[in-house]
Amino acid sequence: MANPLPRVSPGLPPGTSRDPDRMAADPRLVRWETRSEGPLFAVSLLFLAAYAVHVLARGMPAYGHDICLGVIYAAWGVFLVDYVVRWRLGDYSSSLLAHVRHHVLDTVVLVLPLMRPLRFVSMYQVIQRRREKPRLSLYARVIAYSGMSAVLLGFTGALAVYQQERDAKGASIRTFGDSMWWMSSTITTVGYGDITPITPLGRTIAVGLMIGGLALLGAVTGSFSSWLLQVFSREGDEKPPAR
Amino acid sequence: MANPLPRVSPGLPPGTSRDPDRMAADPRLVRWETRSEGPLFAVSLLFLAAYAVHVLARGMPAYGHDICLGVIYAAWGVFLVDYVVRWRLGDYSSSLLAHVRHHVLDTVVLVLPLMRPLRFVSMYQVIQRRREKPRLSLYARVIAYSGMSAVLLGFTGALAVYQQERDAKGASIRTFGDSMWWMSSTITTVGYGDITPITPLGRTIAVGLMIGGLALLGAVTGSFSSWLLQVFSREGDEKPPAR
Amino acid sequence: MANPLPRVSPGLPPGTSRDPDRMAADPRLVRWETRSEGPLFAVSLLFLAAYAVHVLARGMPAYGHDICLGVIYAAWGVFLVDYVVRWRLGDYSSSLLAHVRHHVLDTVVLVLPLMRPLRFVSMYQVIQRRREKPRLSLYARVIAYSGMSAVLLGFTGALAVYQQERDAKGASIRTFGDSMWWMSSTITTVGYGDITPITPLGRTIAVGLMIGGLALLGAVTGSFSSWLLQVFSREGDEKPPAR
Amino acid sequence: MANPLPRVSPGLPPGTSRDPDRMAADPRLVRWETRSEGPLFAVSLLFLAAYAVHVLARGMPAYGHDICLGVIYAAWGVFLVDYVVRWRLGDYSSSLLAHVRHHVLDTVVLVLPLMRPLRFVSMYQVIQRRREKPRLSLYARVIAYSGMSAVLLGFTGALAVYQQERDAKGASIRTFGDSMWWMSSTITTVGYGDITPITPLGRTIAVGLMIGGLALLGAVTGSFSSWLLQVFSREGDEKPPAR
Repeated sequence: MANPLPRVSPGLPPGTSRDPDRMAADPRLVRWETRSEGPLFAVSLLFLAAYAVHVLARGMPAYGHDICLGVIYAAWGVFLVDYVVRWRLGDYSSSLLAHVRHHVLDTVVLVLPLMRPLRFVSMYQVIQRRREKPRLSLYARVIAYSGMSAVLLGFTGALAVYQQERDAKGASIRTFGDSMWWMSSTITTVGYGDITPITPLGRTIAVGLMIGGLALLGAVTGSFSSWLLQVFSREGDEKPPAR
Repeated sequence: MANPLPRVSPGLPPGTSRDPDRMAADPRLVRWETRSEGPLFAVSLLFLAAYAVHVLARGMPAYGHDICLGVIYAAWGVFLVDYVVRWRLGDYSSSLLAHVRHHVLDTVVLVLPLMRPLRFVSMYQVIQRRREKPRLSLYARVIAYSGMSAVLLGFTGALAVYQQERDAKGASIRTFGDSMWWMSSTITTVGYGDITPITPLGRTIAVGLMIGGLALLGAVTGSFSSWLLQVFSREGDEKPPAR
Repeated sequence: MANPLPRVSPGLPPGTSRDPDRMAADPRLVRWETRSEGPLFAVSLLFLAAYAVHVLARGMPAYGHDICLGVIYAAWGVFLVDYVVRWRLGDYSSSLLAHVRHHVLDTVVLVLPLMRPLRFVSMYQVIQRRREKPRLSLYARVIAYSGMSAVLLGFTGALAVYQQERDAKGASIRTFGDSMWWMSSTITTVGYGDITPITPLGRTIAVGLMIGGLALLGAVTGSFSSWLLQVFSREGDEKPPAR
Repeated sequence: MANPLPRVSPGLPPGTSRDPDRMAADPRLVRWETRSEGPLFAVSLLFLAAYAVHVLARGMPAYGHDICLGVIYAAWGVFLVDYVVRWRLGDYSSSLLAHVRHHVLDTVVLVLPLMRPLRFVSMYQVIQRRREKPRLSLYARVIAYSGMSAVLLGFTGALAVYQQERDAKGASIRTFGDSMWWMSSTITTVGYGDITPITPLGRTIAVGLMIGGLALLGAVTGSFSSWLLQVFSREGDEKPPAR
C-alpha cells in the first residue's frame, strides 16, 4: 500500500521533511537529540505537574502558586533552549524562518507547551531503543503510544478548559470532574453536550482536543481492528497443521 | 502492511507478550487452557446472569439476592483459581508481580469481572476449533466476534451504570430501558446526551464503555468496509470470464 | 491482507456461507435469481412508496390508506414467495430451519421488510452486470452502493420512527422534517440530541439505524479515504515521466 | 488491496470517469486546465472572501454589500465560462446532458459554488506539480489536502448556516462564533447539540457539512493512523543495524 515512501524518517511528524543529505550531516545534532530526550521528557512531566497543581490547588497559599509558575516558566525556558540548540546544530546555514517552516510541530509545541504530549513519539522511541528488543508487537506499540498520548492530551486539555471555564458566568463545567467527563465524551467523539465549554478560549481548546482525540483514538481503533484481523487470519492459517 | 510480527500469538490481547521459548514449554498449561475455557465461559455467563438478576429484580425477596451474590462470589472464586493455576503452570520461576505485568488484560478482567466479555477472543477460537473448518470468512469472523463482544459489553455496562444511577438524586437514567438507550447511543459514539449518567462511578464506567465500544464497533465497521471492498473487487475480476 | 478467503461469494452478506459444491448445483436457482432481481427491486420500491404515503399522507381519505396497506401486504407476499422459491430451489434436501440458519440476512429482511435496502448489494450487481463494463472504479462503486443504501435506510428509518413518535406524549419528533434531521445526525454518528425518540419502539428502530449507518457510512468514509490515498500516490508515481 | 484499478485518473472525483481514448484526445483541454487552475483558485478565494464579508459585515453601508454581490456574481460567471469551455473542449460530439452526467461533481460545484473547496484536489496537484519534487510524504499530502479542504468547507458551511440562522426566531446560533463552535462539533462528529440549526435550509446545509466532514476528517484520521503504523514499523526494521 505504501512502499515508495523514502522521505518520512521515524520520529518526524507528517508535516516536516529533511533533506536526506542533511540527515547524516551533523553527528552533534544526533548526539544532542539522544541525550536531551530523557531530561526533556522529565521536564515535560514537571511542567505538566506544576500546571496541574496551579490549576487544581486553588486553596494553596500564594507562594505555592508562585513556585508552580516558577517551574512552568523555567520549563518553558528549557524548551526554548532545546529549540535554539536544535536550530543551530541542524542547519547552520539556514535562517530561523526556514527552521520554523521546516519544523512546524516543534514550533507549535514550543509556543503551546500544553501540546507537548504530541511530541512523545520520539520519547517513546528512545525508551524502546534502550531495550534489547521491543516488548510489544507493532499494533500494540501504536495502541500504547496513541493511547498514552490521548490520555496525556486529554488530561492537559481538561485542565486547560477547566481553568478557562470555572469562573465563567453560566458555565456548566464547574468542577475538574465535570471537565474530565466532558473531555472523555469529546475525545471519543461521543459528545453528549450535557456539559460544554462556553468561553471563546475554552471552545478553542476544545476544538484542538476534538481533532487530537479524533486522530489519536482513530489510530487506537484502527490498530486494534487490524490486530483483530491479524489474530483471526492467523487462526485460519493454523488450521491445517492443527488438524 | 505488517509482515514481520512473529510475537503476537492468537488469543493474546495486544498488551501482552510471551517469551517464544516459554510458549511451547509447558504442555500442562496448554491442556489446562484447552480444558478450562469451556467451563470458564459457562461460569462467565452464570456470573453475568446472576448480576443481571441481582440488579434488575428489585422486588425479589432478600434470599434471592443472597443466592445471586453467592453465585457472583463463587464465580469470582473460580476466576481467581484459574488465574493462580495459569500463573503456577505458566512460569514456575516467575514472581506473581512479573505475571501481573505480563498479563495485564487477564489481571484487569480478574479484578473487574464485568469486563470478561473482552476475553472472549479465546472462547470464540475454542468454539471455532471444534469445527472441522470455520463456517465464516475472515471478515465475518471478526464482525461476529466484535459484535458479540460489543453486545455483551454493552449489556453489562448498561447494567452497571443502571445500578449506580437509579437511586441518584436528579439522575436521568431511571429505568433499565433508559440505560440501554443511553448505552446504545454511547457505544456507537452517537451520544445524544438526552440521558446521561451523573454519578462519578457511573461516569467512570461510561468512559470504559466509550473506549470499548469505539474499539469493538470500529472493528465491526472496518471489517464490514473491507468485506464490501472485497465483494466489489471480486465482482470486477469476474467480469472478463462472465462476458 | 486478505488473500485466502475463497468462501465469500459476491452478493452474500458476511454472515452467510454456501457449500462450494452447492453453488453451481442448481441452474434453476441461478436463473430465478437473475430473472427475479429486477422485479423484486421494483416491488421493494413500490413497498417503500406505499409505506411512505401511508405514513406521511395523514389527511388522505380512508380508502387511500387501504390501498397503501394492500400494496404493502401484496409486496410482502411477493417477498415471501421469493423466499420460499429460493429455499426449494436452493437446497431441496435441507429443512426450512437449516435454510433460515444459512440465510440470516434474507430471513431478517423478510420479517422486517423495511430493512430491504440492505439487500441491495445484489440489485446493484445485477444492474452493473447488464453493462459491458463497470462505469465506476472499485472505490466509487463501494461509495455509490453504500451511499445509496444509507440514503434508503435513513429514509425508511426516519419514516418508521416518525410513525412511532408523532403521537407520543412529550415527543420531540413532531414533523417528518424533525425525523429526517434526527436521522441525519444519528446515521453520521454526530448525535446532537436536540431531537430524540422517546418511545421504546422508536428507540429500538433508532439503534438499528445507528448500527446500519455506522457500517454503511464507515464504508463510504473508508473508501473515500483509500481513494484519496490512491490518487495522491498515483500522482507521486507520475512525477518522473512528467518532468 | 487495490491494484487493478486503471480507470481512476488523478484529480477526478470518484463519481466520474473518462474514456481512456478521450483522455489524450484534446491537448487544448489539457492546456486550458493547466492554465486556468491557478486563476480559478484565486477567483474561488475571492468568491469566498466576498461572501464572508457580505455575511459578516452587517453594519457595512449598502454599496459595500453591492460590491460583494458583484464580486460573487462575477466569480460565478467565471465558473460558468470555465464549465462551458471544458464541455466544448472535452467532448465536441457530446451533448450537454452527457457532459453533466459525466461530471457530477463539477456540476454540483457549479450550482453550489460554496462547495468549491471539494474541487481543491486538482488545485493542490497543480501547486505540487510546480515544485521539482513533492515536499511531503504520501500520508502528509493526504492529511494536508483533506485538512485544508475540511477547514475551508467548515468555514464556508459556518458562514452559510450563520446567514440562515441568525434572524430565525428561537435560533441558538446567534453569533458567528456560535456557528464556528457548532460547525467544529459537527464536522468532527462530536455533536454536542448545545447549539443547533433550526431552519430547514440551515439543517440541509448542516447535513452536507456532516457528510463532507465525515469523509474529509476520516481521511485525515486514516492517514494519520497509517502514518503512525509506518513510523513504528520502520522503527522495528532499524533495530538490527542500530545495535
